Amino acid sequence: MIEQLPVAVLGANGRMGAEAVKAVESAPDMKLVAALGRGDSLTSLTDAGARFVVDLTVPESTEANVRFAVENGMHAVVGTTGWDAGRLERLESLLTGHEGVGVLIAPNFALGSVLASAFAAKASKYFESVEVIELHHPDKVDAPSGTAVRTAQLIAAERASAGVEPSPDATTSELAGARGCEVDGIRVHSVRLRGLVAHQEVLLGGPGEQLTFRHDSFDRASFMPGVLLGVRNVAQHPGLTVGLDGYLDLGL
Amino acid sequence: MIEQLPVAVLGANGRMGAEAVKAVESAPDMKLVAALGRGDSLTSLTDAGARFVVDLTVPESTEANVRFAVENGMHAVVGTTGWDAGRLERLESLLTGHEGVGVLIAPNFALGSVLASAFAAKASKYFESVEVIELHHPDKVDAPSGTAVRTAQLIAAERASAGVEPSPDATTSELAGARGCEVDGIRVHSVRLRGLVAHQEVLLGGPGEQLTFRHDSFDRASFMPGVLLGVRNVAQHPGLTVGLDGYLDLGL
Amino acid sequence: MIEQLPVAVLGANGRMGAEAVKAVESAPDMKLVAALGRGDSLTSLTDAGARFVVDLTVPESTEANVRFAVENGMHAVVGTTGWDAGRLERLESLLTGHEGVGVLIAPNFALGSVLASAFAAKASKYFESVEVIELHHPDKVDAPSGTAVRTAQLIAAERASAGVEPSPDATTSELAGARGCEVDGIRVHSVRLRGLVAHQEVLLGGPGEQLTFRHDSFDRASFMPGVLLGVRNVAQHPGLTVGLDGYLDLGL
Amino acid sequence: MIEQLPVAVLGANGRMGAEAVKAVESAPDMKLVAALGRGDSLTSLTDAGARFVVDLTVPESTEANVRFAVENGMHAVVGTTGWDAGRLERLESLLTGHEGVGVLIAPNFALGSVLASAFAAKASKYFESVEVIELHHPDKVDAPSGTAVRTAQLIAAERASAGVEPSPDATTSELAGARGCEVDGIRVHSVRLRGLVAHQEVLLGGPGEQLTFRHDSFDRASFMPGVLLGVRNVAQHPGLTVGLDGYLDLGL
Repeated sequence: MIEQLPVAVLGANGRMGAEAVKAVESAPDMKLVAALGRGDSLTSLTDAGARFVVDLTVPESTEANVRFAVENGMHAVVGTTGWDAGRLERLESLLTGHEGVGVLIAPNFALGSVLASAFAAKASKYFESVEVIELHHPDKVDAPSGTAVRTAQLIAAERASAGVEPSPDATTSELAGARGCEVDGIRVHSVRLRGLVAHQEVLLGGPGEQLTFRHDSFDRASFMPGVLLGVRNVAQHPGLTVGLDGYLDLGL
Repeated sequence: MIEQLPVAVLGANGRMGAEAVKAVESAPDMKLVAALGRGDSLTSLTDAGARFVVDLTVPESTEANVRFAVENGMHAVVGTTGWDAGRLERLESLLTGHEGVGVLIAPNFALGSVLASAFAAKASKYFESVEVIELHHPDKVDAPSGTAVRTAQLIAAERASAGVEPSPDATTSELAGARGCEVDGIRVHSVRLRGLVAHQEVLLGGPGEQLTFRHDSFDRASFMPGVLLGVRNVAQHPGLTVGLDGYLDLGL
Repeated sequence: MIEQLPVAVLGANGRMGAEAVKAVESAPDMKLVAALGRGDSLTSLTDAGARFVVDLTVPESTEANVRFAVENGMHAVVGTTGWDAGRLERLESLLTGHEGVGVLIAPNFALGSVLASAFAAKASKYFESVEVIELHHPDKVDAPSGTAVRTAQLIAAERASAGVEPSPDATTSELAGARGCEVDGIRVHSVRLRGLVAHQEVLLGGPGEQLTFRHDSFDRASFMPGVLLGVRNVAQHPGLTVGLDGYLDLGL
Repeated sequence: MIEQLPVAVLGANGRMGAEAVKAVESAPDMKLVAALGRGDSLTSLTDAGARFVVDLTVPESTEANVRFAVENGMHAVVGTTGWDAGRLERLESLLTGHEGVGVLIAPNFALGSVLASAFAAKASKYFESVEVIELHHPDKVDAPSGTAVRTAQLIAAERASAGVEPSPDATTSELAGARGCEVDGIRVHSVRLRGLVAHQEVLLGGPGEQLTFRHDSFDRASFMPGVLLGVRNVAQHPGLTVGLDGYLDLGL
């Protein structure tokens, strides 16, 4: 008989949390032992015997949640935003005192998105030109998306370390904004369209050829395989890991 | 036996002109009677018996070329830019005195591009959201492209006359330029990438669906079917026509 | 005050029907007066004062439903399949005796899909090559999709009436199926992929250029604008109309 | 002063060879010392002091060319097809006797294409579904393309070794060919369209998401960066390497 991992979901009443509850319940190798919403006491995690905590809450409470988990020897898989440098530093200090415990903080759990960003960055050093287009529903308040910013940063870093020149651009006459915004020297364009969810393209161009990586997120369900993969692997990665790609086999 | 239309090409040494020379020579229903370059005298057009003139020259000489053609009863198909309102007005006056003569001034001879813009405008009134992305080689100096500006204007006019609301957009935090530029209220994004020639997408979005029109110009050859179609039809369209769509059967 | 159209939905417990109930309830110019499921009596339509009937039932019952509506002077908007030539003929006969009544039978209510097919057909006569790719979720049992078959038929008819040659194809060595299936001489390819809903591309190619029409249906919600447009216009189209494009302003 | 690699091009009168001649001449770190066409004697390679040989000839002569190069201590970069198992075996035997000499046999020199195939294979094990679409000009005689076959084989091998199930497919009613052909259990579709050169998409799908890798070859120029990269690296890879990916840094 298969041994099931005892998992708790924090933020279970939120949209992502509710999906995670369903995903954990459907996973044959996991058992949902607690599903906490706003105001529920963290002590019920220990009472329920949780060994894995999935945090999909809000920036205000995620640090306290993860601290509680680590102090009680539980591994944590975190999708909440708001983990700035100060918080990450405090978490790393805490983890040095709890050696076997693993924490994964992933700004993005969509496997396809993580893979696309990683591959695009790696490939970008072989091409003269690179630009990013992200496309989302029109209710999104920020532009560009956080994922696009991180993708551009990854690309910029990879190109810088390989000594690649900036993408050529002869534009001398521009209607303001036509050429998008710049993130670490990489042009990023944000499209907002009713009917869309979350989509991104990285376009690489060289003499006579183009290489395009496109990721489409049609549904929040797309994040769940990544969350489950995180839970299944976090115990084998003690300490702090930022980004799901740390758990993926991308070596070629 | 087929009667061949006697065609002259002006600007025959330019890149577009050279393509046109080849295209006319290959067309079984046309005969190239003159191919003029910079400095050649226009009187050789009459000497050669040209009845159709294809002008692919430069803004500085196109008006004089077309005037000469019209005054000598030749139909003209014009791909040169620089036809502002004043020039068009003068040409219309001239044409009222030469009743059977037709002139086509087409900012774009790529059939696919013209069709895509016309269809996209027509469809745009059935969708909440619309944006335009144009992609070109990185040696282009202006952004957005003239074709993208015209496409956006067509869309804006069609939506205005149908009373469609502006595309929704909840953006409150934008890195400058991320959301592109605005042409008559339509967002336009310009990508510059080595390896590309000239490409454009119009994206329409409504609840749960997206409709996309994409045109790719891989090669100057793509303009020639439109030039030939212009020559074949210009005599049946006396007076001034602006835009190749005036010659296309797009009625549905 | 706005006068509301009294609408009844048949098949209200099905997936499409349930969407239609929501859509009618949300439309400010409509009033849902009846929502019937399997086994409910049609006489409640007259009791409720319905003047518009939306039929989203099953092939077994749609003909009787529409007959009842017409005989009682109600306009009908029909999304149910199964309307073969015999049924359509009987319906036309019936309608000759009920002059002011309109019936719309639409195999596809997604505006974007209908527009894409109509435009693609119209444009196809200007290009040497045309192929169709349809992409759906992997639980679909038929390949190609009904929409792809109809699109290919429209294209074939338009090209035939314009005297366009078949798309060129030099293939002499083919792994069976690589080049797709043929519908009226048009190649159609069917992709099945987890995560997708319903998507279609028409690719047109000529010397140096490509024109692509793509439609994405992400959600059943995409059919509702078309259903509502049908209800709003059916009274102005007495008699039988097959296909939503009959109600759209596509003239260019 | 930079030391220039002395390079000879075989097949210099062919289309690919002519491009290679131009590319080598333009590369600041290389010197074209010989450009041989059909019938030219191989001994001029030694006379000219060539240390690197680029073979872009025909299946009939490539083996003899490479044998001559290896026996004379020259490194070889080979784009010619026709290297079956027997030839590769004989070449490996020959190379064991010439220890410092490197040979690269690459069926595809387009960096973007090689990267796309490698990444797509690696990513494919994280997705339920995968299909390949390749699109070429209509003068191509084989379907699917050799690149598509190799891509499908790479994907199939990667999925097999990770124990991934076949892509789901509920099709029970198929118009012959609609679902494409099968290469090692992977569905491949071949589109032929005037205006295209060589293009390929790998589509990966999972619950609620899609990841797409697309490569466009617009021009033979796209192969030259790969040829030059081969020349620059072949001396550091003694023995036989098949596939340009052996020279790329794809580790993530």
